Formats: sequence, C-alpha cells, structure tokens
Amino acid sequence: LSCFRNIIDAIIPIIMLARLQSILQQFPDLDLNRSLLLGLSGGPDSLVLLDLLSRLDYPLSAAHFDHSLRDESGVDAQRVGEIALSRNLPFFLGKGDVRAFSVEESLSIEEAARILRYRFLFSKAREVGAQAVVVAHTADDQVETILMHLLRGTGLSGLKGMDTFSLPNEWSQDIILLRPLLDIWREDVINYCQENDLNPVTDPSNREVTFFRNRLRHELLPYLETFNPAVRRSIWKTARVLKGDDELLERMVEREWSRAIHEKGPGYVSLHLSILKEQPVGLQRRLLRKALAMLRPGLRDISFDMVERGLHRLEGKKTGLLTDLGSGLYIYVEGDIVWVANWEAELPTSRWPQLELSRGRLQEKELHVPGSVQLRNGWEMHAAVMEDINTARKKASQNQDPYTTWLDSFGLQFPLLLRPRKPGDRFQPLGMEGSSIKVSDLMINEKIPKRVRRAWPLVVAGEIIVWVPGLRPAHQFRLLDKTDKVVQLTLKTP
Amino acid sequence: LSCFRNIIDAIIPIIMLARLQSILQQFPDLDLNRSLLLGLSGGPDSLVLLDLLSRLDYPLSAAHFDHSLRDESGVDAQRVGEIALSRNLPFFLGKGDVRAFSVEESLSIEEAARILRYRFLFSKAREVGAQAVVVAHTADDQVETILMHLLRGTGLSGLKGMDTFSLPNEWSQDIILLRPLLDIWREDVINYCQENDLNPVTDPSNREVTFFRNRLRHELLPYLETFNPAVRRSIWKTARVLKGDDELLERMVEREWSRAIHEKGPGYVSLHLSILKEQPVGLQRRLLRKALAMLRPGLRDISFDMVERGLHRLEGKKTGLLTDLGSGLYIYVEGDIVWVANWEAELPTSRWPQLELSRGRLQEKELHVPGSVQLRNGWEMHAAVMEDINTARKKASQNQDPYTTWLDSFGLQFPLLLRPRKPGDRFQPLGMEGSSIKVSDLMINEKIPKRVRRAWPLVVAGEIIVWVPGLRPAHQFRLLDKTDKVVQLTLKTP
Repeated sequence: LSCFRNIIDAIIPIIMLARLQSILQQFPDLDLNRSLLLGLSGGPDSLVLLDLLSRLDYPLSAAHFDHSLRDESGVDAQRVGEIALSRNLPFFLGKGDVRAFSVEESLSIEEAARILRYRFLFSKAREVGAQAVVVAHTADDQVETILMHLLRGTGLSGLKGMDTFSLPNEWSQDIILLRPLLDIWREDVINYCQENDLNPVTDPSNREVTFFRNRLRHELLPYLETFNPAVRRSIWKTARVLKGDDELLERMVEREWSRAIHEKGPGYVSLHLSILKEQPVGLQRRLLRKALAMLRPGLRDISFDMVERGLHRLEGKKTGLLTDLGSGLYIYVEGDIVWVANWEAELPTSRWPQLELSRGRLQEKELHVPGSVQLRNGWEMHAAVMEDINTARKKASQNQDPYTTWLDSFGLQFPLLLRPRKPGDRFQPLGMEGSSIKVSDLMINEKIPKRVRRAWPLVVAGEIIVWVPGLRPAHQFRLLDKTDKVVQLTLKTP
Repeated sequence: LSCFRNIIDAIIPIIMLARLQSILQQFPDLDLNRSLLLGLSGGPDSLVLLDLLSRLDYPLSAAHFDHSLRDESGVDAQRVGEIALSRNLPFFLGKGDVRAFSVEESLSIEEAARILRYRFLFSKAREVGAQAVVVAHTADDQVETILMHLLRGTGLSGLKGMDTFSLPNEWSQDIILLRPLLDIWREDVINYCQENDLNPVTDPSNREVTFFRNRLRHELLPYLETFNPAVRRSIWKTARVLKGDDELLERMVEREWSRAIHEKGPGYVSLHLSILKEQPVGLQRRLLRKALAMLRPGLRDISFDMVERGLHRLEGKKTGLLTDLGSGLYIYVEGDIVWVANWEAELPTSRWPQLELSRGRLQEKELHVPGSVQLRNGWEMHAAVMEDINTARKKASQNQDPYTTWLDSFGLQFPLLLRPRKPGDRFQPLGMEGSSIKVSDLMINEKIPKRVRRAWPLVVAGEIIVWVPGLRPAHQFRLLDKTDKVVQLTLKTP
C-alpha cells in the first residue's frame, strides 16, 4: 500500500502540471510570449505554483509583499527572494505599513493588507509589462472565501467565489488576475511540496493578517465536517454551478442594460422606469446594482439594503421623492426617469427650458416681438407676429407641441418679459374660465420636475402671465373670431 | 423602557397580522371563499399562525400528524386537538409508523417523517377541498434549511430556500403549499405567544425527528453568530436575492426548453444537441437538469455529479457512447439527438426503417416487383418497374432522397428479399469501383445509430446486396446507357 502511495505521489506533479496546462489553455487571451508575475508569499501554495509555472514556457517573474506585521517578516521576505533567485527569476520585493493604512482608511487589517499587496503586485506587473498577476489560491481558499461571504452576507456573485480568470478586475482594466489552482486541494499541494522537496518559508497556519479566515479554516471548517465529512467538496461544487448561473444572469443584464439606460454623466446614471418595471424583480435588482457599481466602482459589495431601498423607491407610486441609499448616493424618480446619483452631482437640466444664471442669479429678459431670447443649454425663445390669422387659428387648434403657442395680441404689453415664478404667482390657463390657479400648483399638477421649476421661464406681459411654456397659453389671450393680430411664441430646443 | 417594551409587544400582533395579510395578497390565486388546511404541530410557530389565520376570513381547518417517535406524542396530539376544537375548527389527526417507513425506504428518520407528514396533510386537504396546506416555517427555519442544503451540497434552488407560495409542489399539482411566516423571526413568534397567552404543546427545542436540524439550530447557528452576530439576517437576505435570480434563470430555461426538446416518451427525453451546445454551460446544465427531473420527479436533488457527467458526455466528440448517470439513468448522443433515458426504456425507432419482429425474431420478407412489403412503425417498401428509362436516369442523377433508388434490372433475381445484415456481409456502393466494404463498417461510417443497425432492412437479390436503404445502391446495378429496364425502390415513411 505504501508503495502504491509512492507511485501516486510521484504522479501528482505530472497530473498537476497537465491540469494547470489545460486550465491555462481555456484562456486564449494568454500569450505564451508575454510574461506572468507570480505573487510569491512563500507558503506551500505559491511555491507549488512557482514550481509548476517554471515548467511552462511563459517568461516568469516573482514578487513578494512584506506586510511588516510580524517581527520576522523581513527575514521571511529575504528567504522568499532567495528561492526566486535560485531559480533565476527576476524578483521584486515590496513593503508597506499595513497597520497605518488600516487606521487611515478605517479598514480591517486583513482588508488593508489585501489592498496594499494587490496594488503592489499590479504596479509591478505594469512596470515589467506582465500580461497577468498569478496568485496561488486553492480550492480550499475558494471554499473559505465562499463561507466568509455567506457569513457576512452576499449574493450570487459572492457565493460563486473567486474566478480563475478575471479581466477587467478590481485592480486593472488590462492586466489579468489569474488563479490557476482554484480546482486543486491544499492536500495535493502539501503532497507536491513533500514530493518535490519544496520548503515553504511561511507557515500557512500562521497567516497573521487573516484572523477571520484563520478561524474559518482551523475551527469552522473542521466543525462543519462533523455535519458532512465532504462539506468542502460540496461547497466547491455548489460554487461551480453558481458560477455558470451567474454568467447567464450577467448576459441577461448586459442585454437589458442597453435598453434600460437613459443617460450616464458625471456622478449620475439615469434609467427608464418603464423598462425597469417590465423586468422581473431579480433583473431590476441586478440593473440597479449595475448602476450603483458604475457610481461606486471601489465599493466591493454594493449592500443588500442599498439595493432593496432602491427597489422600494421604484415600487412607490409617487415620483419626485428622493431616497437616500447610503454611501453618498440617492435615487430619485422623475416621470419615467430614474436618477441614481451622488449627492454632489448636478443632474442635467438640458431637457427643460431654464432661465440663464449670472453670478448665481436667474436672469429676467425682455422679449421683443419680433425677437428672440437666449436660455440655458442652447434653448431659445422666439417671438413673431403672424400675419395669416386663419392659418394661426388652424395651427393653434391642432397644436401638439407644448413649446409653441399663439396669442391674441390685443391687450398684450410689449416688450414681453421672461422671468422666473414668484411666490403668489397665479395663472388662468386656456379653458379654465372665471378662475385661476397658483403657478406652483400648476407645475406640480403638470409634473414639471421640482428641480427645474425655480428656473422655468414664464412669459409675462405687465403683471399678467401670458404663457407657461410647456403648458397652455393664458385663457385671456386665446384666439377668438374677432382676433386680428397674432403673436407666435416658440421655444427652440438645441 | 419597560413601558415602551410593553407597547411594542402589544403592537406585534397587529403588525404581524398586517404582514400576513400583505403576504397573502401577493397571491391572487388564493380564494377567500375556499378553505385553508393548517399543519398544526403544536409548537409556537404553528400556534401563532393558527391565531393569525383565525383573524382572517378564510374557512380554516387544522391537522396534526403524530410521528409516534416519543412516548408522549399521543398525549401531545390530543392536546393539539383540544386547542383546535376550542377555536371551533375542524381537526384531523393522522398517525404513521415513521421508523418502519424509514427502514422500508432507506430514509433518514427526518426524511421519512417529512414524507409521511406531508402526504397526510395533502390527502386531508384533498378530502376537505382545501385550496392550500399552510405550514408555519419561520425566517429561522429558512436560514436553517439553507445552511442544511449548503452543508449537504446544493445549487441555487437549494440556497434560495423554501418558497412562500409553491404550486405545483412535491405533493400536489393543484393544492398550494403556503408558508406565510417565512419573513418572520422566531423571536417575534415567541413574543407573540407570550403576549397572547398561547401555550405551545411541544417544545420546539425538542423536535426529536430532526436531529441534524437540531444541531444546526442549537450548535451551528450560535457558533456562526460568533463570526457575525447578524449572520441569520445575512443568510436570509442572501436567500431573498437568490430567489429573484433563480426565477430569472427558470424563465430563461422555460424559453429555451421548447427549442431544445426533441421528444418526450415513456422513460426517455430527447434533446437537440446542436441547440444545447449553442447555450452557455449554465443553461446547458439547467436544461439537462430539467430533463432528468422529468424522468425522476421523485428525486429531490438531482445530484451535481449526475449533471456534470451528462455535461461531459455532451462535450465529447464521439457519438454513440452511453454514459451511466446513476439512479438508473443514462445519456446517449446519437447524431444531433441527445437521449436521456431509463435503462429499461425502449427508445423509439420510428425514425428509421426496421424489419418487423415476430416472437423476438426479425422477419425476412420477399419483395415482388411490382409489390410492397410492410416494415415496423408503419414504414413500407415499394418496388415498381419504371417504363420511362430517361426519366428514371434523370431522377437517379438528381436524387436527394436516401430512401429511394433506381436499379438496372439486368441480372436482378426476383423476387427480391428484405433481410437483416449477417456477419461478413459486404456491399459495393455506387461509385466504389473494384472493391467492396463490410456492411457493418458502412453502417458505422454512415452514422446509422447502433441500436437500429441489427433490424435495418437490406435489399438482396440472390446472394448480392443490391441496396442498403438510406445509402447508395450497389455499383453493379447502377443505371447505364445500355440499361433497358429499371426497378424503382422506395421506402415510405408513415
């Protein structure tokens, strides 16, 4: 039996090499002539990966990041460097103050270490022109990561675990993050080390930076094995199935995204409410999550509560209400448009007529007839006398354009004035006989978005509001049979 | 503070009733005039559900299943009955020998108890014409179920947990399985009991039938809370997101299924290989899983390995190889058709010409010219003399139909014979000059499926094979310039 075991052990390196090759072959983007940068911690996983990669044809270099969290970390780093140099590999050593960084950024030690380590690896990879950073996470690491995500709360993207091939990734748009050992168990890695006389520098049971993960590895997983001895493999298989499912859903999201998106600008993304609402809730959630991820690419996990609050806003009947999503973002429904935005972002107003601002003040402007006035974002108001009364009457009766109107000029005082609304402003729209309505109420009724009401131009003759552009003209200046002179007002959009 | 707590406690029933109503309103299929059958264990969860449901307008009855696993279970059952009767509800008591059933069916006690309990509840529901069986699983039960699935190995359908509304379900095609408390935590249930003087009959910490679940509840979850005090809520939220994702994927499967399916018959399902292969692997997996679920509706979990073995078969280049999937099923690729079948199932042969069987023996038959012969599944072979030689020559040269051929009758021996292949049979197809090929090799080359080769009809004149239907005619009997008499052979499909 021990002889049989010897044979197996001798075969392991061959099998593992073959598996590594078959994994790498799945990614045709990998170029045999471009180099790989290996993250070399000095633990058994990374030593085995070093040994396997040296047997392949890719140009290879290695990098080690000294987290400086233990006294002996410098000595260890030196030994890791010696291993790389003994194999004639270019070696890069990085060092950072993880503790200080964790305090500065209010991060756990683990998270701070991770960020500094990967930043170093990717900056080195860029420097040496490597096509990929290769790290040695195993199937055991995968299972631990998934459990960690589950314990902390996650969705499918967390439960599917890490990807073997990741581009773009958190660190780069063009350098691949490669984890070729995700299908290989730590047990096989340890055997490989023994069989090939690889001597790990660091004790993997002593990863001082990952207290949470250590408890998970040394306490939780053995405990879970008392429920099911094959629990690691069960979780690993689950992750594999979920990865396929997640890919399917992401395809679906990509397909619907181009329909759902309305506009993307600095600090905001807007979506079509009607298109979102026709999707099943799972897809609404993923589309909203995608919008949030565009505004917060750094945020590793867009939280469940953030997305659910957003979904709740979409469900509500009322438009015009803001919902705070946390992390400095809000969601706001305006007619058919859903705005997801930073609190500081200025939402575009170019879809509506707005008076110009000068040193923070809204500009009143005279409008001569004929004549024209410039508004914000390239909008213009034109006024003209229309000689052909019959045509004017016909056009007015058939008009569908809310930004054009015709007024009986009898009683109009020239020049007209374009000004913002004032408190107490009232208006009697065409058809509302004998009474008037507050302009502010009218704007609410007509669903003019709140944020553009203040600078909305009113056309005034003396004290009388003769037109609220976008709405009907004043009843008093409607065209009558006896009308003998007509003024045509038109808002031109850019 | 204690006063404030009192107010909260007093409000709980009102809030919970409102939540229950809003949950039930989500399901327009529920009919206020049709009754609900409540599964009443006597634990706090089911008592609270009883109390809440009595405040609604649905006709209500209750049923209790005595698992007879403890000495006092009969006394408990009686007390549960008294509670139902004190509320003037119709009450049904069931009893079963869980231990015997578990031995008989090689099930865990837990699983045996579950099956007998639900069978009882659904048979009673059918008897009294109830529209739904209502059970009192809480958010805590949901979390436990998900963890149990994760530990045992599962996919998205296991991780999303139980559904509030389930139809069709494992037990019925038309009676709903309803779990309206899935959003409510056990803590609130316990408070509700205290506030409303509900006295549980059974101790929920003493569910003797669910040893695994008990360890999960009393050991694992408190332990996981040392990693994250809010772990229950995290898992519950995860499940909620996954449920939406799973719904999306199931929609996708439904859409593709109608394209992918080829045929469904007793003990088999066949799919189009080319359509499967154009799908991403996640969808291939789900389509295959659906086919397996159709053949094994009783199998609660189609295993990961079963599906992966099937996927592996689809990836393979070779057709005609069987892969055992376990659970008495196999998968078999035949040209563009993927058969998923029971080992005992007889796959349909109706797509191919087959000699008839009589008492297990293949029937040789004489074919007169003119004349016809009956084959299996409504196929027929027709022979006729064709007078117009030029037309015959033209048709033969343009022929696309592998089941029609024209032979020079010079040298043919009548009547022709239809017989199965014999060992050593050789054939010289049209165009193959000077040599012949073994009929068995020819059938392999021409991709005639293995299972239909034995009964494939050969047309023989004396000792010479003149035609293998589906392939070219014999070289020797091809139409020549000097041909003056032509026999036309045609296979007619039903």
